[in-house]
Amino acid sequence: MKKLNELQDLIIDGVNQLNYPDQPAELYEPIRYILSLGGKRLRPALLLMACDLFGGDVEAAVKPALAIEVFHNFTLMHDDIMDNAPLRRGNVTVHEKWNTNIAILSGDVMMVEANKLMMLVQDNILRSVLDIFNETAQGVCEGQQFDMNFEQDDRVSIDEYLNMIRLKTAVLLGGALKIGALIGGADQENAEKLYQFGVNLGVAFQLQDDILDVYGDPEKFGKQVGGDIISNKKTYLLLKALELADSDQKQQLLQWIAATGFNTTEKVAAVTALYNSIQVRQHAETAMNTYAEIAFKALDAITLPEDRKQYLHNFADGLMVRDY
Amino acid sequence: MKKLNELQDLIIDGVNQLNYPDQPAELYEPIRYILSLGGKRLRPALLLMACDLFGGDVEAAVKPALAIEVFHNFTLMHDDIMDNAPLRRGNVTVHEKWNTNIAILSGDVMMVEANKLMMLVQDNILRSVLDIFNETAQGVCEGQQFDMNFEQDDRVSIDEYLNMIRLKTAVLLGGALKIGALIGGADQENAEKLYQFGVNLGVAFQLQDDILDVYGDPEKFGKQVGGDIISNKKTYLLLKALELADSDQKQQLLQWIAATGFNTTEKVAAVTALYNSIQVRQHAETAMNTYAEIAFKALDAITLPEDRKQYLHNFADGLMVRDY
Repeated sequence: MKKLNELQDLIIDGVNQLNYPDQPAELYEPIRYILSLGGKRLRPALLLMACDLFGGDVEAAVKPALAIEVFHNFTLMHDDIMDNAPLRRGNVTVHEKWNTNIAILSGDVMMVEANKLMMLVQDNILRSVLDIFNETAQGVCEGQQFDMNFEQDDRVSIDEYLNMIRLKTAVLLGGALKIGALIGGADQENAEKLYQFGVNLGVAFQLQDDILDVYGDPEKFGKQVGGDIISNKKTYLLLKALELADSDQKQQLLQWIAATGFNTTEKVAAVTALYNSIQVRQHAETAMNTYAEIAFKALDAITLPEDRKQYLHNFADGLMVRDY
Repeated sequence: MKKLNELQDLIIDGVNQLNYPDQPAELYEPIRYILSLGGKRLRPALLLMACDLFGGDVEAAVKPALAIEVFHNFTLMHDDIMDNAPLRRGNVTVHEKWNTNIAILSGDVMMVEANKLMMLVQDNILRSVLDIFNETAQGVCEGQQFDMNFEQDDRVSIDEYLNMIRLKTAVLLGGALKIGALIGGADQENAEKLYQFGVNLGVAFQLQDDILDVYGDPEKFGKQVGGDIISNKKTYLLLKALELADSDQKQQLLQWIAATGFNTTEKVAAVTALYNSIQVRQHAETAMNTYAEIAFKALDAITLPEDRKQYLHNFADGLMVRDY
């Protein structure tokens, strides 16, 4: 089995070798730019890992893996417009560096490029692969819309939230793994199990992110601890807290949500104290562990020798034990 | 051969039967809305015509024809954002009726829907059909970018303009015809000839539009006659006039282009008079006729009995003799 850094190197080489026309420059420069901003290339690496898992030729899977990376960056380019985000990976976003129109149209053409790259698979799996890709792409769009809706919605349920993160984040991990599996020669049944592994792991991973945003070590966590609390983001923790709070706790929570001109340190401390007394961290960890267990059960059910699956198992363990 | 109105009815029925999920409503309602605004359904009808031309089963081509219509409306939805357009076919545009974010994301999911519909062809032509579709989609994006660039560019050449309208308008006509031909059982060579027919006819059609905008009968022309002159749109007529004008004429043209607070009737009359003295209408008609001739030669070269091709020939004639 190839290690993550070998796979990431294949992706990085592949990204560097992607060719676009020179003209119109306004269309293709932003694509080169956003793809040059780096990132962990986790999604395409997962595609290659899945291919490798079933003994497939990893080199032959690089183009479809790049399709996943180009698609992912297309969604980031459009999401950044919608979220009015000034920065992406510490760099100016495309709509800020150029303008919104260019970010819309470059994103559109990235989606076409992603489709073209995804077609570079053998004929016998072309339809299956594109079906998964289209289903995944549609899910990601739905997830983004739900996420935007939730900002304005005061009655989001935990189930609705879990469905949103499944669509917005998790199905792309599952889709990348399933496509990689098919390229590697897996049958539909094993490929579907790997999809379930990816989707459930993705939900667990996002729940972990919600927990770390509040309880992460400020020294190790990449973002500002408490950022979700400051912005009233409807995370699993906040939704669970609102669900379980007694009337006094609920009133305090709602007051902090409605507050303007607050001291951020004070708000983070107060809401975290409420979370502690309601024990939402434990609830979130239980939910996270449940999704992780479902993921690992799906991986266990794949009909391959245990030692072949060990690497992916260890890798997923690694993703889930971030202590920061 | 089936007549245009029969084919349009098939498309209209197909559009009405398109199924989308209910949720998130903000994503799918705008798709239903823009597709309900009508239009002549020319592009999907051309796909069906091409299929019919080669004796294919038109009913089996309806889904890919709808893919063309959904894709076309996706480009309109995003173009309307970029052009800041308040109206589309006399109705409020999606970004005005909802908002820009919803128009971006609904457009994105329309592109996925278009891809899904385009996959509903037989396995043996799937790759060819999707290759054409992706190439077409990329061309349309490039054309839109060139069109936006030209608004800010004072040195657009006639060749650049012709390339822009080829990409923005004509390749989709060509692509629709070529895909329809393949579904109908045409070989690659005949399909490619039909593509050339469509692309060149599309360029001719756009040149006719440029001419009609100035010289159309106000009673019959759907838009305001002189609209391109009022807005300084870089049409074939304006570019050719700037190319051929003597220094005095050029100075007058540039004055009208730079003018603010002008009387629109006066500007249209003055610029039209300059066009007349430079004889740009004749130049534009010559160019238009040249493209139409190339189109008809490509149609003539298709290895089918003449009487089978007669309907498409007549149809194209009809498109090119709008006297309004």
